[in-house]
Amino acid sequence: GYGRTGVIYVEDRAGNESQIATRVRLNIDGSVSTDQGVDFGARVRLQWDQGDDALESGSPAYVYVTSNGLTVSVGNVSTAYDDAGLLYATELGAFDRSVGGNSLGGFYAFESKSYGGENDRVGVAVSYSVDDLTVRASYIDPDQSGLNEVAYGTDEEFGISVDYTWNERLELSAAYVQSGLGFDGNDQFFVGARYAVLDNARIGLNYIDNGDFVDTAQNPNGPVAGQDLGNTVALYGDYTLADGLTNIEAYIANNDGDWASKETDNAFGIGVNYDLGGARLGASLQRNYDEKVTADLGVRFDF
Amino acid sequence: GYGRTGVIYVEDRAGNESQIATRVRLNIDGSVSTDQGVDFGARVRLQWDQGDDALESGSPAYVYVTSNGLTVSVGNVSTAYDDAGLLYATELGAFDRSVGGNSLGGFYAFESKSYGGENDRVGVAVSYSVDDLTVRASYIDPDQSGLNEVAYGTDEEFGISVDYTWNERLELSAAYVQSGLGFDGNDQFFVGARYAVLDNARIGLNYIDNGDFVDTAQNPNGPVAGQDLGNTVALYGDYTLADGLTNIEAYIANNDGDWASKETDNAFGIGVNYDLGGARLGASLQRNYDEKVTADLGVRFDF
Amino acid sequence: GYGRTGVIYVEDRAGNESQIATRVRLNIDGSVSTDQGVDFGARVRLQWDQGDDALESGSPAYVYVTSNGLTVSVGNVSTAYDDAGLLYATELGAFDRSVGGNSLGGFYAFESKSYGGENDRVGVAVSYSVDDLTVRASYIDPDQSGLNEVAYGTDEEFGISVDYTWNERLELSAAYVQSGLGFDGNDQFFVGARYAVLDNARIGLNYIDNGDFVDTAQNPNGPVAGQDLGNTVALYGDYTLADGLTNIEAYIANNDGDWASKETDNAFGIGVNYDLGGARLGASLQRNYDEKVTADLGVRFDF
Repeated sequence: GYGRTGVIYVEDRAGNESQIATRVRLNIDGSVSTDQGVDFGARVRLQWDQGDDALESGSPAYVYVTSNGLTVSVGNVSTAYDDAGLLYATELGAFDRSVGGNSLGGFYAFESKSYGGENDRVGVAVSYSVDDLTVRASYIDPDQSGLNEVAYGTDEEFGISVDYTWNERLELSAAYVQSGLGFDGNDQFFVGARYAVLDNARIGLNYIDNGDFVDTAQNPNGPVAGQDLGNTVALYGDYTLADGLTNIEAYIANNDGDWASKETDNAFGIGVNYDLGGARLGASLQRNYDEKVTADLGVRFDF
Repeated sequence: GYGRTGVIYVEDRAGNESQIATRVRLNIDGSVSTDQGVDFGARVRLQWDQGDDALESGSPAYVYVTSNGLTVSVGNVSTAYDDAGLLYATELGAFDRSVGGNSLGGFYAFESKSYGGENDRVGVAVSYSVDDLTVRASYIDPDQSGLNEVAYGTDEEFGISVDYTWNERLELSAAYVQSGLGFDGNDQFFVGARYAVLDNARIGLNYIDNGDFVDTAQNPNGPVAGQDLGNTVALYGDYTLADGLTNIEAYIANNDGDWASKETDNAFGIGVNYDLGGARLGASLQRNYDEKVTADLGVRFDF
Repeated sequence: GYGRTGVIYVEDRAGNESQIATRVRLNIDGSVSTDQGVDFGARVRLQWDQGDDALESGSPAYVYVTSNGLTVSVGNVSTAYDDAGLLYATELGAFDRSVGGNSLGGFYAFESKSYGGENDRVGVAVSYSVDDLTVRASYIDPDQSGLNEVAYGTDEEFGISVDYTWNERLELSAAYVQSGLGFDGNDQFFVGARYAVLDNARIGLNYIDNGDFVDTAQNPNGPVAGQDLGNTVALYGDYTLADGLTNIEAYIANNDGDWASKETDNAFGIGVNYDLGGARLGASLQRNYDEKVTADLGVRFDF
């Protein structure tokens, strides 16, 4: 798991624009290796975020079996689309935020807290890694019982993704999801590439078809249901200074969608991370499609 | 703890008859040994089952002290009746299910999730093991405060059980519980024996007086309050194939009770488990007293 | 964490005067050391108390960084006033209870369960230790968002405390808190000293200005809002018998406040703890300001 804390400023946020934001995430795993060299395991997550009254619940669990690069998971699984290697590559700073470059579309992912009433949801995921190639597929049924169709859509979501690294220089990533969040027709895709132009500099380009249905939980200040999410193109890169510890990163993203609060087609951000060797200090300054500025400064450590 | 997952088919279940069922159970223990060689410890359990929105709560806790084979527990304790060695010996497959051979009666056991409003419940349990003999006694007060008599009965439940193994061949088990689940007059008893007729084959016989009050949480498709639970006799056995890994198991049970959905006095099942060395694959096919068929196929691993 | 269990008697308590009381506390920490020798960490707590339906939630979390004796914490932090070294020095027995010598005033502390609606609370704490000196400061904002002022007061609480040990014989402790629990004007202070008159005997004196606002959660049978909490003076001591394992402890406290149920200005108690080497048996007998007697007998172990 990890811990992180710091201050986030959001322009025109109701109440105080600058607030402390802390998250602690604990992954609890149990696992066993069989005599045949097959690993079986289970995971739940305990996560507290600033604004939660308590560590109100652990996550739903998933169970997995791994052998020779092939992993099959059942339960509250990670999904193929969400796991695509470069989908979140524009994120900046200690909080890993990107207000312009991330997908706006709604799709399932590992649920860190609660299904929230969608308690008959079940997922199955498969991933396979060999050398520089990873292939994933996932299937989520929002209600396997047929009796509890309370939230999101009622279709089954199916997703695939592929990551490939060529010669340790070029990363390629692609993903597709059908009926994201269980909504019929909410199909999305993503392609991305990042190339190490120097040993200490990389540049990348992402293209995201955001589909039809926004995940408002992930995008509280963006579009709402029924508005045009458009497609997003993002150019991004990062550069490590000669100290080998300071990493500068930036993106510029263009979205051709149309929603009520949208003021511009261009969002951008710049960030920096300083490696403390086990922890990192980070900061970012970004402007979103509503022409609102956000900034953050914090520290993150993994354990 | 353990993890398990697979598919369970239940004939005529509302909604989909076949559903994925996953459980992850994590026992969290803290313990310390004193200089005198006495062990003190505490346990809580985190358990998620398919159909739960989240890992909604950890269990109430218990505290124990152990020395020279004697263990005393206080709090959310395991009960003597529930711990009887052969009470669940007819269970089959990776999910350890027995729709005909298990007790229908209501009695207290360690609560894996929440007391559900019965929050002034308290238990004390004692167990003593020496050589091949184990003796247990437990006492549960549903409401020690005298002010919170909300659920089940309000009497105190008292239970005892004894297990004895003779010559590593013959297992004997007996148990008695008075005022099960706190209901006055809801007395139950159990006697069972299992004999290893061969090194790789065992045969057993159980007799259960189910008392007067069904635990509907444990028996969702069976009798309801006020119906005659009868007594249950179960004949069961298991056989390990020459590979030493495949174990075939079966039971046939007779119940002379009478409830609305009951169609027959006989239930039966057959199962198989294959040992993966740290995990096991299992399957079962069973028919209950309502003449409904159920089947399951899954994997379970302990960690 | 720790576990403890036993029986507590409270004179004239509604329902049964004697009840079993069990607590299990589990602290879950994650931490990492950076290459520069700085430690980053995070903590959540899982705690179950007798009377809780389940381990209903984990605590809100805090994140800390430590280096060279300086610790900075953010989130659900321990507060300077609550951490003052001798503030709880009159507590007796295995349950560490003091019905006369503890503060009656309301102030923030680490929250073991839930903020209870005050979910935009945030704290920052600093402590610094060098040789025999520890200095602490803490700041709690009950609602950093400016939008969620639901519980307690809405002011920011600020506290400081200092502990100093002289020559391993004399302990000095002082603390001050402004706007305790966020109530304007609810200022409190504490000074205490304890001296080791012999190698196996100590005697101490505490003075507490309880402020204006009682923490009724901590003092269920004492004063209520709007009543005069007065100031508390407590004389206390402890003596270890020649076996080196048995510790006798006692206090007498005087409070000049005035509240409805108060019958006397003097409360007192005597207790004993027997060291089991990793666990301890303890008992106490006390009388509070309402002239009610309470007694307890239990065991506690730390792990």
